[in-house]
Amino acid sequence: MAKKIKLGLLGCGTVGTGVLKVLQENYHDIRAKIGNDIEVSKVLVRNLNKKRDFNGDVVLTDNIDDILNDESIDIVVELLGGIHPAREYMLKAMENGKHVVTANKDVLAQFGKDMFDAAEKHDVDFMFEASVAGGIPIITPLKQCLTANKITELIGIVNGTTNYMLTKMTEQGMDYDTALARAQAKGYAEADPTADVAGLDAARKAAILSSIAFNTRVSLEDVKVEGITNITPEDITYAKELGYIIKLLAIAKHTEDGIDVRVHPTFIDKDHPLASVRNVFNAIFIHGNAVGDTMFYGKGAGERPTASAVLADIIDVARDMGKDRFGKIRCTCYEEKQLCPPDKVLSGYYIRLLVEDKPGVLGAIATAFGESNVSLYSVIQKRRVGEFSEIVAITHNVNNNQIEDLKVRLNNLDVVHEISNIIRVVMSQEA
Amino acid sequence: MAKKIKLGLLGCGTVGTGVLKVLQENYHDIRAKIGNDIEVSKVLVRNLNKKRDFNGDVVLTDNIDDILNDESIDIVVELLGGIHPAREYMLKAMENGKHVVTANKDVLAQFGKDMFDAAEKHDVDFMFEASVAGGIPIITPLKQCLTANKITELIGIVNGTTNYMLTKMTEQGMDYDTALARAQAKGYAEADPTADVAGLDAARKAAILSSIAFNTRVSLEDVKVEGITNITPEDITYAKELGYIIKLLAIAKHTEDGIDVRVHPTFIDKDHPLASVRNVFNAIFIHGNAVGDTMFYGKGAGERPTASAVLADIIDVARDMGKDRFGKIRCTCYEEKQLCPPDKVLSGYYIRLLVEDKPGVLGAIATAFGESNVSLYSVIQKRRVGEFSEIVAITHNVNNNQIEDLKVRLNNLDVVHEISNIIRVVMSQEA
Repeated sequence: MAKKIKLGLLGCGTVGTGVLKVLQENYHDIRAKIGNDIEVSKVLVRNLNKKRDFNGDVVLTDNIDDILNDESIDIVVELLGGIHPAREYMLKAMENGKHVVTANKDVLAQFGKDMFDAAEKHDVDFMFEASVAGGIPIITPLKQCLTANKITELIGIVNGTTNYMLTKMTEQGMDYDTALARAQAKGYAEADPTADVAGLDAARKAAILSSIAFNTRVSLEDVKVEGITNITPEDITYAKELGYIIKLLAIAKHTEDGIDVRVHPTFIDKDHPLASVRNVFNAIFIHGNAVGDTMFYGKGAGERPTASAVLADIIDVARDMGKDRFGKIRCTCYEEKQLCPPDKVLSGYYIRLLVEDKPGVLGAIATAFGESNVSLYSVIQKRRVGEFSEIVAITHNVNNNQIEDLKVRLNNLDVVHEISNIIRVVMSQEA
Repeated sequence: MAKKIKLGLLGCGTVGTGVLKVLQENYHDIRAKIGNDIEVSKVLVRNLNKKRDFNGDVVLTDNIDDILNDESIDIVVELLGGIHPAREYMLKAMENGKHVVTANKDVLAQFGKDMFDAAEKHDVDFMFEASVAGGIPIITPLKQCLTANKITELIGIVNGTTNYMLTKMTEQGMDYDTALARAQAKGYAEADPTADVAGLDAARKAAILSSIAFNTRVSLEDVKVEGITNITPEDITYAKELGYIIKLLAIAKHTEDGIDVRVHPTFIDKDHPLASVRNVFNAIFIHGNAVGDTMFYGKGAGERPTASAVLADIIDVARDMGKDRFGKIRCTCYEEKQLCPPDKVLSGYYIRLLVEDKPGVLGAIATAFGESNVSLYSVIQKRRVGEFSEIVAITHNVNNNQIEDLKVRLNNLDVVHEISNIIRVVMSQEA
C-alpha cells in the first residue's frame, strides 16, 4: 500500500480543472478514504502556455506519449471528449496496463463494447460514472444497488441545456429563440447548440443508461431521437392547461416485445416526480420489479459536479489498487435483446390542429381518429387563429403506425388547414 | 468460480419472504450478474409449522447453530431486527468466517463499530444497505459515488409512517389521531406506533447516514429527537399559508463547530425538492462541496423494496467471492469529530401563541423577541380562539439558548395565554 498512486489527466478544460481543484481541496479526506497518497502526475494539454485556472503544481505536456508510456502512471483520466483521439488514447492506455476513468459519453455510446473488451483483456478497471449526468450517481447505483431488479422503465431528464430552456418557456413564457439566447448567455448552451436541442446529447446518455439497465448493448443508432426545436409557446400553454409539463425525456423501456429507447419532447403529468425538476437540474426515474419507483436527482454537468463523479471513479480504482484486484464489475451486457418493433411502441399523443371554423368539422376529425383506431383521451377547441379554429387532442396509448395513418387521414381532410404539432404524452398509468 | 454460493437467512418475516421471492423471480439475471449459482440453503424461523407465503424449496430450522456452524454457508443474511439476539448472531457468523448482510438499523445505530471491527478482524464483508430507506440506494452512493465530496448537509425523510400521516394531515385535513388510525389500517403503522411517531426510527437512520456522510461515528444517543405527536391541524394550516409544508426531517450538518444531527418536525419551503415527497415515499437530500445538491428518492420500506437492497448487498458480496477478495470499503469513520455545542446549532422557528386581545399586546411580544435577540422573519395575527387572539411568528436562524430564553420571557408576560407550539423551520438559504 506504500506506493503513491499516480494519475495522468488527458485534457484540462472545465472538468479537468474541476478534478484538480476538488482533489486539492478535499485531499485530506480522499487520502484517508483510499489509504494511500495520490497525485496528478501529468496533464495533457493542447497549449502549454495558456494560463490555467488552478494554483497547484502540475506537470503539463502536449505529448500524449509522455503519459501513455510513463510506467509510473497508474490511472489515465480521459477528459478530452469526442471520439477521436480519445478512444485510441484510452485503448492504448489499457493496453499499457493502466486503469481508465472517463467522462466520455460519445465513446461509450458508440464503442462501449470495445472499451469493456479491452479492460477485460488487460485486467484493468474502466470507469465512466461522469459520462451521464455528472452530479447524479447513476452508473454505480444501476450496476450495484439496483442490480437485483429487472428494470422495466427508465425515464430521464439528462440534458441540462434543454431543461433550462423548457423551464424558462414554461415559467416565464419565453419563446424558443429567447430561451436559447438566455441559455447561451448563461453558458449553458454552446454557440452551436445542435447536439443539445436536437436531442443527440440525451440520446448518447440514453444508450449508456439503457445498456446498463437492461443488460444488453444499446448503441446511439438504436435510439430514436427528436429535439425540442418545434416546441412553441402555444404547446407550452396547452400543456399547462391540460395538467402537463413539457420535458425533453429519455425514455427506455424493457417490454415483452423488446427494448424501446427514445428521446423526445414529452407531455408529462405535473404530479410526476420528474415534472418538478427545473432549470439545469437532471433526474433519472427508474422502475424496478423489486424496488418499485425510485428517482435520482442532481446537477447534470459543470466543473465541480462532474469532477465529483470522476474523482469517485478514481477513488474506486485506487481502493482496488490497495487490494490489488480489479474488475469486480465489468461489462454487464450479458445478453443480446431485440429492439421493440415500431408497431409495439406505445405512447399517448398530443395533436394540435388548425381547422376551418364551420359546422361538422369536429365530427369529421373525430371520424378520422376513429378510422385510424386512435382513441381520444380529451379534446379541447378554444382559440381562433385568424380565420381558423385550433383543436387540441390528447390520445390514449397508440402505436406509431396508427399515428402515421391518422396523419394521412387528417391531411386528406379539406377542413384541416394544418397539423401544427404532435408531441408524445406519458400517460399517468405509464409513469 | 464453480462453487455454488450458499445463503443462510435469519428470519422469514416480511423482508425474508421478499428476499426469497425476488431471488426466485429474478434468478436468471442474478446468476448472470454474479457469474455463479446461488441458493438459500437454510432459513432460521421461530415456528417450523407456520404456513409461509413462498412457493419454493427451502430448509427451515429453529436452531441458529444449524446455520452458524454450517461450513458450507458463505453469507448470513440477518433479518430478525432488534438488538438481541441479532447482534450476537452476526458477531458469531463473522467469527466463523461468514459474510454478513443485514437490514438491522438498531444494531447499526448503536453497535456499528463492533460490527466493522469484527468484519475487519475476520476479513469478511459486512453490508447494510437495507438498514436505511430500503428502496433508496444510499449507503453505497455515500460510500462510493459521493466519496470525493465533503458532505456538509444531509436532510432526509426517512420514516414512511410519519410521512404518510403528515401527507394526509396536509392534503386531506385529517387530525393526528385520524391520520394515525388510517396509517394503522393500511399497515403502515404498528399497533404501538411509538418508534415511528416519536422519531426514534428516523433517529437510528440519521445516526447511520451521518456516520457515513461525515466519516465519524454518530450513535443513536448523539441524535436529538422530537416526534410529530404535537402537530395540530392549526400548524398544518399556518404552514400552508406561509408557503411551507411540515415534514418529519432527519437533519445532519457538518459545521465548523462540529456535527449536528437531529430529527424533528420541520417547516420546509414548499419549493424544496423534499416538499413534494408524499405518502410512504422517502427521500434523502445531500449537499456536497463538489457535487452541490443531489437527492435520492424511493420507497423506504416494504417487502420488495427492502429485498432489493438486501439482494444488492448479497450480489456485491458474491461478486467479491468470485474474485476471492473482501472488504474493499470497510468502516469509513476514520476520524472522531465533536458534536456541535447547543449554542451553535442554528434554526429558524415557527412559534404559535394565544394572547389577550387588547391594545399593546403585539408590542409587548415583539419586545420579548427583541430582548432575547431573536429576530423576526414574519408575523401574522389572524384568528380568534375564544376570547384570545392567535399570533404566529417565524424567526430568522437563532440558537437553542435564544429560544429557551424567549420561552421564559413569553411565559412571564401576562398577555400571553399559552405558547401553543414551536416547530423548527428550514430557512430557504439553508436548504
